[in-house]
Amino acid sequence: MFRPHMFSRRSFAALLLSSVPIAAIMAQPLADPLPSWREGATKRAILEFLRKTTSRDSSDYLPPSARIAVFDNDGTLWVEQPIYAEVVFAVDRVKALAPLHSDWASREVFQAALAGDMASLVKGGLRAMGTIVLASHAETTPDTFHQLVSDWLITARHPRFHDRYTNCIYQPMVEVLTLFRAYGYRTWIVSGGTTEFLRPWTQGIFGVPPDQVIGTTLKTTYSMRDGRGELVQLGELESLDEGAGKVVNLYRSLGQRPVAAFGNSDGDYEMLQFTTTGQGPRLGVLIHHDDGDREYAYDRDTNIGKLDRGLADAAANGWSVSSIKNDWSRVFADHQ
Amino acid sequence: MFRPHMFSRRSFAALLLSSVPIAAIMAQPLADPLPSWREGATKRAILEFLRKTTSRDSSDYLPPSARIAVFDNDGTLWVEQPIYAEVVFAVDRVKALAPLHSDWASREVFQAALAGDMASLVKGGLRAMGTIVLASHAETTPDTFHQLVSDWLITARHPRFHDRYTNCIYQPMVEVLTLFRAYGYRTWIVSGGTTEFLRPWTQGIFGVPPDQVIGTTLKTTYSMRDGRGELVQLGELESLDEGAGKVVNLYRSLGQRPVAAFGNSDGDYEMLQFTTTGQGPRLGVLIHHDDGDREYAYDRDTNIGKLDRGLADAAANGWSVSSIKNDWSRVFADHQ
Repeated sequence: MFRPHMFSRRSFAALLLSSVPIAAIMAQPLADPLPSWREGATKRAILEFLRKTTSRDSSDYLPPSARIAVFDNDGTLWVEQPIYAEVVFAVDRVKALAPLHSDWASREVFQAALAGDMASLVKGGLRAMGTIVLASHAETTPDTFHQLVSDWLITARHPRFHDRYTNCIYQPMVEVLTLFRAYGYRTWIVSGGTTEFLRPWTQGIFGVPPDQVIGTTLKTTYSMRDGRGELVQLGELESLDEGAGKVVNLYRSLGQRPVAAFGNSDGDYEMLQFTTTGQGPRLGVLIHHDDGDREYAYDRDTNIGKLDRGLADAAANGWSVSSIKNDWSRVFADHQ
Repeated sequence: MFRPHMFSRRSFAALLLSSVPIAAIMAQPLADPLPSWREGATKRAILEFLRKTTSRDSSDYLPPSARIAVFDNDGTLWVEQPIYAEVVFAVDRVKALAPLHSDWASREVFQAALAGDMASLVKGGLRAMGTIVLASHAETTPDTFHQLVSDWLITARHPRFHDRYTNCIYQPMVEVLTLFRAYGYRTWIVSGGTTEFLRPWTQGIFGVPPDQVIGTTLKTTYSMRDGRGELVQLGELESLDEGAGKVVNLYRSLGQRPVAAFGNSDGDYEMLQFTTTGQGPRLGVLIHHDDGDREYAYDRDTNIGKLDRGLADAAANGWSVSSIKNDWSRVFADHQ
């Protein structure tokens, strides 16, 4: 087992070099643990937090069982503009299912979806987008739904970057996820998207297994079908994983308070607050989308990842606000 | 990392010996991986299941990520008669809280609790016992509740065995838990009791961490209290972790179908069914309480751990029914 604290008296470079292959060492003689992050307050805060919570000689040392870091997904780990990927998936699914649902033609939100009118759905906010998402899950078993998601991710392309959504992930955050794990942390995703939309691919893309994915859930029934016990999702909301709902849901799964939290919108406010108001060392980071050239620039005035309270209170709450424009030397893993 | 499959061509004895300290080897030259289990069908089924799912040369080999085993708690890992431990805890808590709840004196179920009339509560079934349990949680933060549970477990004694409840755990099942983990399985507890009643002690007693504990949950609110984000449990049921509810809840946390399940009552039926009707190698085990001398003898005619459908269908479902009387050479870890 790799134990970073054994190396606590050495430099970061020595620490990282000890865990990378020879070829990587030769290509990168001065290994930077977060190579896509420019030097700055957030990078320093992350590295210092990891050092002090894993060095046995630190008064902030945390045992491995307490090393829990939580991450929002949309806008924190991958792109969420111009509309959440799951809503695009749901719109495609609604189009495919429309022949079976004659009532949809008379409902405004489904009309927008069937016309591919994303602007109307965004304008309709969580209520409109949520209606489409719930409809896309209805009457599916998890296995069936996972296959639909996996198939969609292979063919769908982001409208601006013309690339798979799973390639529109933030390289700096992938580095943060892997660095936390290298220091003995477990990394959990806590998303406003549905749990079952994430589970098919987070292991492969982010290294986060299905049981460390928490999201919005739908009511589900259990019954026998053709000799096999099956869960079937209903098109009804069970629990919205947003705002205070993220705290309730993450605690239901985790049973403990995380010590580090990363988010980008006011929907992550309570999760960061719950995390950083516990005793002992804490880290809260908000990603600020301020780079329209390389990604998107938005905060207070959007229905997708609105960030207002978070920006206003970050300093008072001791949270780092990370500027994509200034802090990230690279945005995406696989293009740009 | 210990990888049992590396030793798959060797005997069980060699495998186990390789992971135990020298002193243990000398004291027990022919190491038995389940020393409190007598030779029999269930022991054979467990050992064969572990061998075939972890031997790389087996057609039933499972990768570590698929190795998930789920265990009921009451009556499967520890004693549940003459009444669930959590109900005894809740009765004690209701007595302590009674001065703050003048309305309780006029409600029959609280009258029974305040009089310590356990027989009435058992007779009232899940509804009566559940009412008392919900009341014991109400208006508590998880931290406060955990401390109450921990304190209670130190002082409370089982009425027949005159020992701590955490000493009234089944030694054969502790051996099963640790053996599964030695073979790379993750072991989850899926209990009809509340999640928060279990989380303070399952790590220390069973080696199961808080995030692998699934139970009945209460509605919970989040708010700031004295500058600290706090969850507060309400005295209302959110999700009963029993029957089909166990399947819904375990899947919400796990995101995959377990491959092995252990239970003892009809409340575990659907969990065993869901587990054993998946594809590939499967193991379902029901513990049958038939030993009134050393523990308790009960099945069809009880409100505590009723086992009727399970007994009737076990053979058809391919589940092992384990007789405590015949299969367990020792029942408890710390007495008898």
